[in-house]
Amino acid sequence: MVTVETTRVVLGVEYNGSPYQGWQAQKHTTDTVQAELEAALQFVANEKVRVFCAGRTDSGVHALTQVVHFDTKNPRTIRAWIEGTNTRLSHNVRVRWAQFTNKNFHARFSAFARRYCYVIDNRAVRSALMNKQLSWQRRELDTKLMQEAADMLVGEHDFTSFRHVHCQAKSPVKTVYHLNVKRRGYFVTIDIKANAFLHHMVRNIAGVLMAIGYGKQNPEWCRVILDARDRRHSGETAPPFGLYLIDIDYPEEFAITKMETELPFLINQ
Amino acid sequence: MVTVETTRVVLGVEYNGSPYQGWQAQKHTTDTVQAELEAALQFVANEKVRVFCAGRTDSGVHALTQVVHFDTKNPRTIRAWIEGTNTRLSHNVRVRWAQFTNKNFHARFSAFARRYCYVIDNRAVRSALMNKQLSWQRRELDTKLMQEAADMLVGEHDFTSFRHVHCQAKSPVKTVYHLNVKRRGYFVTIDIKANAFLHHMVRNIAGVLMAIGYGKQNPEWCRVILDARDRRHSGETAPPFGLYLIDIDYPEEFAITKMETELPFLINQ
Repeated sequence: MVTVETTRVVLGVEYNGSPYQGWQAQKHTTDTVQAELEAALQFVANEKVRVFCAGRTDSGVHALTQVVHFDTKNPRTIRAWIEGTNTRLSHNVRVRWAQFTNKNFHARFSAFARRYCYVIDNRAVRSALMNKQLSWQRRELDTKLMQEAADMLVGEHDFTSFRHVHCQAKSPVKTVYHLNVKRRGYFVTIDIKANAFLHHMVRNIAGVLMAIGYGKQNPEWCRVILDARDRRHSGETAPPFGLYLIDIDYPEEFAITKMETELPFLINQ
Repeated sequence: MVTVETTRVVLGVEYNGSPYQGWQAQKHTTDTVQAELEAALQFVANEKVRVFCAGRTDSGVHALTQVVHFDTKNPRTIRAWIEGTNTRLSHNVRVRWAQFTNKNFHARFSAFARRYCYVIDNRAVRSALMNKQLSWQRRELDTKLMQEAADMLVGEHDFTSFRHVHCQAKSPVKTVYHLNVKRRGYFVTIDIKANAFLHHMVRNIAGVLMAIGYGKQNPEWCRVILDARDRRHSGETAPPFGLYLIDIDYPEEFAITKMETELPFLINQ
């Protein structure tokens, strides 16, 4: 038997999640980002390609940078992996960068932190122009109260109250490195970084912080929910359209490409 | 015969034009902004409603503020015209404001100026997140050269070279009040205000300015095109997705509502 040398390739992928049924390829649906990306890569590689990603995003959730890797027997240039793949993708998905790596790297298992940004349009009338890119809350949000509650979630905690009932993660204990709430013009952003996230964790946190922000609940409610370790105590899951995967951290030894983590419509805001 | 008093209502309407076949209701298609808006207003008014707009936008073109008026026999509150209508619209169209006016006001004929903004993403890889909201040019645009050319178009001119072959305007002579090209981070914006526009005029101007910006042509080429008064001398029509109707001017006597003219993703940029 002949062993064929394979190459491991890493990609930084941006996507508009609104037309897709989430990241992960599923049996009964083909409109996932993974399925579209694999089809494009298979064309360039001229062989079957299976990709692994850093963070599987839900239906409607976007990524400024999703990191994926795959192995291929067929050598191509970096330019071919970027431009060749992009010509086979819809405009909703773009490969922003590509690099070669070694077999110790795994897009999911090597990642030690993920960062998400949740963006809320805080005006009386929601934005038509950006209706699939923003969450919306017409009542004025008090970001000081939201930050007070957010601070209770920073550090290592059991986030059972913030996980989806179908979440498959082995442990509900995660470490939140930062959780910053900011007003930026009429947008309010929730910037959260953790070692890993439970299913719906960011959207459940956003739902709780929003209810506190418009005065339905006190900041202290956030601690009550956290301590309950029971999903039934939590608030509403905030809608997916305001959610963006913006960054993934890997050990320095892999020298994974870093690009700006600021959303194009938030720069300088 | 009984004469029923009618009321004239003016609305400020924001829309994401990407899923529509343009503004104007057509015989063979129902997916126009006008058709969707009229259906929603008819529900609130409980009678047939016909709207008139300030500027008919093409397929894929957006509006931060389109101004429309209509007459109705059935009195409703301002709040009903805003919120009631919005509940019947898809999230791609929003009524931002409403006011009552008199019969001398006409959304189209009373308008003495229209303002558009054309937005170009000037990065090597186009934006997946905003692919339906930006035009794209990968080659670096020199905004100084673009502005030099743009200055030649300011004032009263015969814009025949910049009109679409099917344009129905009576006169090709229009007055451009301002035409400003600016770099704002990795975006380049073309901000243009005129008394009126010919069909495809902004997109044809954008096409010419972009060709000058990336060095395919000299600024002087713009004057050659203008003087030719012949569409065949012009450049490519720039794509519709980067184009936004952002403001309409009316005589002060009508006291028409003014809102911000800055696109949500450009504020402070």
